[in-house]
Amino acid sequence: MPPHIDETHDAQRLSWVEGANAGGDFPIQNLPLGIFSRAGGAPRGGVAIGDAILDLAALARGGLLSGEALTAAEAASAPTLNAVLELGAAPRRALRRAVSALLSHDAAQRSRVEPLLVKMADATMHLPARIGDYTDFYVGIHHATTVGSLFRPDNPLLPNYKHVPIGYHGRASTVRPSGTPVVRPLGQTKAPDAQEPTFGPAARLDYELELGVWLATGNAQGSPIPIAGAQDHIAGLTLLNDWSARDVQAWEYQPLGPFLAKNFLTTVSPWLVTMEALAPFRQAQPPRPEGDPRPLPYLWDEADQAAGSFALNLEVHLSSAAMREQGLTPLRLSHGSADAMYWTIAQMVAHHASNGCALQSGDLLGTGTLSGPSEDSQGSLMEITRGGAKRLTLPTGETRAFLEDGDELALSGRFEAEGFRAIGFGACTGIVEAARTA
Amino acid sequence: MPPHIDETHDAQRLSWVEGANAGGDFPIQNLPLGIFSRAGGAPRGGVAIGDAILDLAALARGGLLSGEALTAAEAASAPTLNAVLELGAAPRRALRRAVSALLSHDAAQRSRVEPLLVKMADATMHLPARIGDYTDFYVGIHHATTVGSLFRPDNPLLPNYKHVPIGYHGRASTVRPSGTPVVRPLGQTKAPDAQEPTFGPAARLDYELELGVWLATGNAQGSPIPIAGAQDHIAGLTLLNDWSARDVQAWEYQPLGPFLAKNFLTTVSPWLVTMEALAPFRQAQPPRPEGDPRPLPYLWDEADQAAGSFALNLEVHLSSAAMREQGLTPLRLSHGSADAMYWTIAQMVAHHASNGCALQSGDLLGTGTLSGPSEDSQGSLMEITRGGAKRLTLPTGETRAFLEDGDELALSGRFEAEGFRAIGFGACTGIVEAARTA
Repeated sequence: MPPHIDETHDAQRLSWVEGANAGGDFPIQNLPLGIFSRAGGAPRGGVAIGDAILDLAALARGGLLSGEALTAAEAASAPTLNAVLELGAAPRRALRRAVSALLSHDAAQRSRVEPLLVKMADATMHLPARIGDYTDFYVGIHHATTVGSLFRPDNPLLPNYKHVPIGYHGRASTVRPSGTPVVRPLGQTKAPDAQEPTFGPAARLDYELELGVWLATGNAQGSPIPIAGAQDHIAGLTLLNDWSARDVQAWEYQPLGPFLAKNFLTTVSPWLVTMEALAPFRQAQPPRPEGDPRPLPYLWDEADQAAGSFALNLEVHLSSAAMREQGLTPLRLSHGSADAMYWTIAQMVAHHASNGCALQSGDLLGTGTLSGPSEDSQGSLMEITRGGAKRLTLPTGETRAFLEDGDELALSGRFEAEGFRAIGFGACTGIVEAARTA
Repeated sequence: MPPHIDETHDAQRLSWVEGANAGGDFPIQNLPLGIFSRAGGAPRGGVAIGDAILDLAALARGGLLSGEALTAAEAASAPTLNAVLELGAAPRRALRRAVSALLSHDAAQRSRVEPLLVKMADATMHLPARIGDYTDFYVGIHHATTVGSLFRPDNPLLPNYKHVPIGYHGRASTVRPSGTPVVRPLGQTKAPDAQEPTFGPAARLDYELELGVWLATGNAQGSPIPIAGAQDHIAGLTLLNDWSARDVQAWEYQPLGPFLAKNFLTTVSPWLVTMEALAPFRQAQPPRPEGDPRPLPYLWDEADQAAGSFALNLEVHLSSAAMREQGLTPLRLSHGSADAMYWTIAQMVAHHASNGCALQSGDLLGTGTLSGPSEDSQGSLMEITRGGAKRLTLPTGETRAFLEDGDELALSGRFEAEGFRAIGFGACTGIVEAARTA
């Protein structure tokens, strides 16, 4: 077997848990980590399997684990996963192998594990970790080019783009799990032809399809993370929706970047899909187009290039309130692969820490919008409707330039590779609510 | 007495604590809050008085407090001040009045309080709070104009500046207390005439003179903070040095703003000077120049305008390693008042939360560089040396375009008003160390 592929990735392995073998996002090959609670209970760590959650605190107490797997399960018994993330890869891997064995169709201990399962329908999901800092990158080159051309028609892709993994700091306090209502923000905007700005509900509310990267271990302030080891600092991935108020953004973003246009809410899928689960879906980073500069040495690692991309299909669906009332299928806004990342997630980490900036366990990085090269794979309405110029028609006959109150937006992603069972992220959704005005 | 002025501000009140009456930053009229530790001990809350620190945990246990003052002292016994900040103004004020009485020259309980004092020389200072998010604003209009003219000669002050309190998210994990070494960051830079970027120690290392604003209480996500109540969310101020690598900044900052140029370190003075202590030093916000736009209603409050500025003098001193070896007095780089803030701190808070962004107890806001209108009041070397073009000569004959290894940079600030005893922030210093290259 290739490195990092083990019996937990065996496509033939089935689980005795109902729903785990039905082709959903959470077969026994996935086993993502998350924080859940039941009515009246404290948040605690769990593993998704089919339509259920394995309670890790109960498992740790149950006498079914030992060694590093037990250490990891105990660390995951807290209201956040920070402690287990901080342990790094080895205990996480040990826990994965132990849980996989316990949930496998041939597990002898089934009768002792079954009482430790909680139905997903009975649980509330929380953020997987207490986020120290949240940083959003801009590695989707098609998005950067298309949006750049809207903001700066003469200069879409700036000269630094192919040298620097561009990123900026986002707001940690407003990252929320899937399902959190998207209250339309108020903001200051100025139409290009207006004399003065005004303040009111944002009119150009948009989404951005991104991946979230959760950090396992950090670095001491002043000590960069070499690119060759950067991968080891990453715990796993989620989906991330960087909700954006385009009219606020256009007026505020110069010279220091987006601020209130983005920081009212960022939604993530609550299940952290671990790097262990992703091993079968790693693929070579697409070669840079001829003529593009070779990255500086602090960003270049052959092993990272050889496995820096993921066999991941991403989709976005929209349903208006009227569509849901009429029982209509959500409209697919885009579908595409995630290989449009100009920089790998290891390059993002190495760049971030290259000046000695202290990264911490539980930090969240966003990739930036992952649009593909074609019109049907664009990851924001800004791109799909050409900044609102080309309205979208919904199955009800309604049209959209940007998101309207009542709209539900859903991101989804599936990892697929020949010979392996596909896995996914679970839900990353939000319904737009009307602005709260005094 | 005017509102918020009470017996704790009485200029005649002296303390029995040695050094408190000698004209330093910490007379009995100040009583700032901070987190200190002694060798081998856990960090805990304290109040600065003269050259000593009153241990609040010991005071809480000592039977000398009651009611809200006791509640506040107990909350301040933790390794961060977050819990006491979260209580809001009333318990903070009650603690201030009780501590002022106990430290007053006529205090009957002197013998019971004296054992609770720790010499500052025996203590290590920490950050006052666990910072949820750190946001840096840009309200120093002279700085924005001067720096803008260096980055964008044709367009120094952008059209949004007088309408929007421009701000952006900074890095919370690298905010550190005074005295933390300033390790010269590595970074990617490209000289304007170079073909390709390079990676190495930043050559244009600079400081920025700012105020730090510590938040007491936050707001629920989705619920803005009205400008009229914004003041109540602020606990107090510190000095803040936004260390900046100008060569990294110039290459990376478009289109999303400064990132690695700033996030390697931000230094704050560790003593949080409370809004209660600052009551005598409030003054009217200078009127906007004729022709400037009136702010939108969500940013406008007459009471805030009437007392939104501070009678504060700021200074910056530099000493090279050679100057210190020769026992030379540090060179004053600038001195000026803090009234060049185009927006008040209440306006910063109201704007930040205007889109529903959740602010939290212990969040830190920077004002942006507070340069005055004259050449001797500019708050960064970028401004003083015109981007390095006009080198500065030190008393040793050395010259500086930007900071060199071994340089010590010190910010200081004194609040002064007729009829009141002046108070200050204490130290906000850092010595530049050579880059750590592999």
